[in-house]
Amino acid sequence: MGSNPMGLIVALDSPDRGFEDLVEELCGIVDGFKLGLPLLVGRGPVYTAALRSRCHEGVWIADLKLADIGHVMKLTTSLVVDYVDAVIAHGFIGVRGALGELKEFLERRGKKLVVVASMSHPGAEEVYDKALPLILDAMEKLGPWGVVAPATRPHVIESIRERLGPRVAIMSPGVGAQGAEPGAALCAGADYEIVGRLIVSSPDPRSAALAIRDAQGRRLASCRRG
Amino acid sequence: MGSNPMGLIVALDSPDRGFEDLVEELCGIVDGFKLGLPLLVGRGPVYTAALRSRCHEGVWIADLKLADIGHVMKLTTSLVVDYVDAVIAHGFIGVRGALGELKEFLERRGKKLVVVASMSHPGAEEVYDKALPLILDAMEKLGPWGVVAPATRPHVIESIRERLGPRVAIMSPGVGAQGAEPGAALCAGADYEIVGRLIVSSPDPRSAALAIRDAQGRRLASCRRG
Repeated sequence: MGSNPMGLIVALDSPDRGFEDLVEELCGIVDGFKLGLPLLVGRGPVYTAALRSRCHEGVWIADLKLADIGHVMKLTTSLVVDYVDAVIAHGFIGVRGALGELKEFLERRGKKLVVVASMSHPGAEEVYDKALPLILDAMEKLGPWGVVAPATRPHVIESIRERLGPRVAIMSPGVGAQGAEPGAALCAGADYEIVGRLIVSSPDPRSAALAIRDAQGRRLASCRRG
Repeated sequence: MGSNPMGLIVALDSPDRGFEDLVEELCGIVDGFKLGLPLLVGRGPVYTAALRSRCHEGVWIADLKLADIGHVMKLTTSLVVDYVDAVIAHGFIGVRGALGELKEFLERRGKKLVVVASMSHPGAEEVYDKALPLILDAMEKLGPWGVVAPATRPHVIESIRERLGPRVAIMSPGVGAQGAEPGAALCAGADYEIVGRLIVSSPDPRSAALAIRDAQGRRLASCRRG
């Protein structure tokens, strides 16, 4: 278990909606914001700065889901790196000429690399899941700041924690719309649960976030007793 | 071998440079343009329309390197789909809830899906290459319009052609800066070679493109004789 016993990060994806008020409303209640590729492409990198000006707290993550050669990933990252704390790339692409270069690029700028180790949709079983041991080998070599693994697959979270140790930050999407209950990933060893629609599409996002925090706390208390 | 015996596509990646004049100069000489994620994030989707207004010929491809759940990939794709003929996603994410949904979304709009089956950097050996048989299984189920496989790995191109048949369009990056010679991928069965820096960074891009076309023709003639 990492340093934050019950982290909550809000996923902002839609390019059609202004998130300024939402960010201000959730500031201090959640631990950070993850900006999806649709938002980053549709609104442009500078929109990230506009959102961040509404909340200077927490961890801000550009979820570019990068999966390219180092040269191209660095070009893309350079567009957002000044506005965020961390960038997400796929573990699938390997270290040499890819994640290794990206990590060095980010670290030189005081920023963090977060790597996807596993995904939550049914098609993940076709290829991604079967490659998990190889991805974990690559992650062990790489030593990223954070790893993404879905809340819908607690055993994957457990094996990442076991393999990569207590210091890596594990972030788990899949809570809410994709079926996992708040707190389930934390119980499996994640540091942050990533929630999108359940908060963002709520008529009262602030209350929705507080209710998820409560549910996380209850679940975590019960799994620690168990 | 597909319908185009010696295709050449130009990769435009840099967000810092205006490509309008280059596109106009290369129009009719090359078979299309591939717009990279750095360009799409940095300049915004509408820039694609501005470039295309300089050349209505050829195939225009948004190289988003998508690797997410269907819902998020469709959100991103919807931002560029009106301006391009095809979109690139990664094969390793699988069909169900991912590439299957994206393909349907594109086909309903008369657009094409191109799927990365293999990459060219050294780190591709760590995970991607080892998953190739699983990726090809998924591609066989999916039936995408096109597949990306690097010019630096002709045996991968051959196995894709053998596995997916004569109709799939195979596109091969890695020519020039990454080490493959013009025509080598075509000899292995690719339909298009993708060239970036060798043309885009040339002081005379038009002559550079014509020289690559010549080199492709010579190489293709010799491998067909051989």
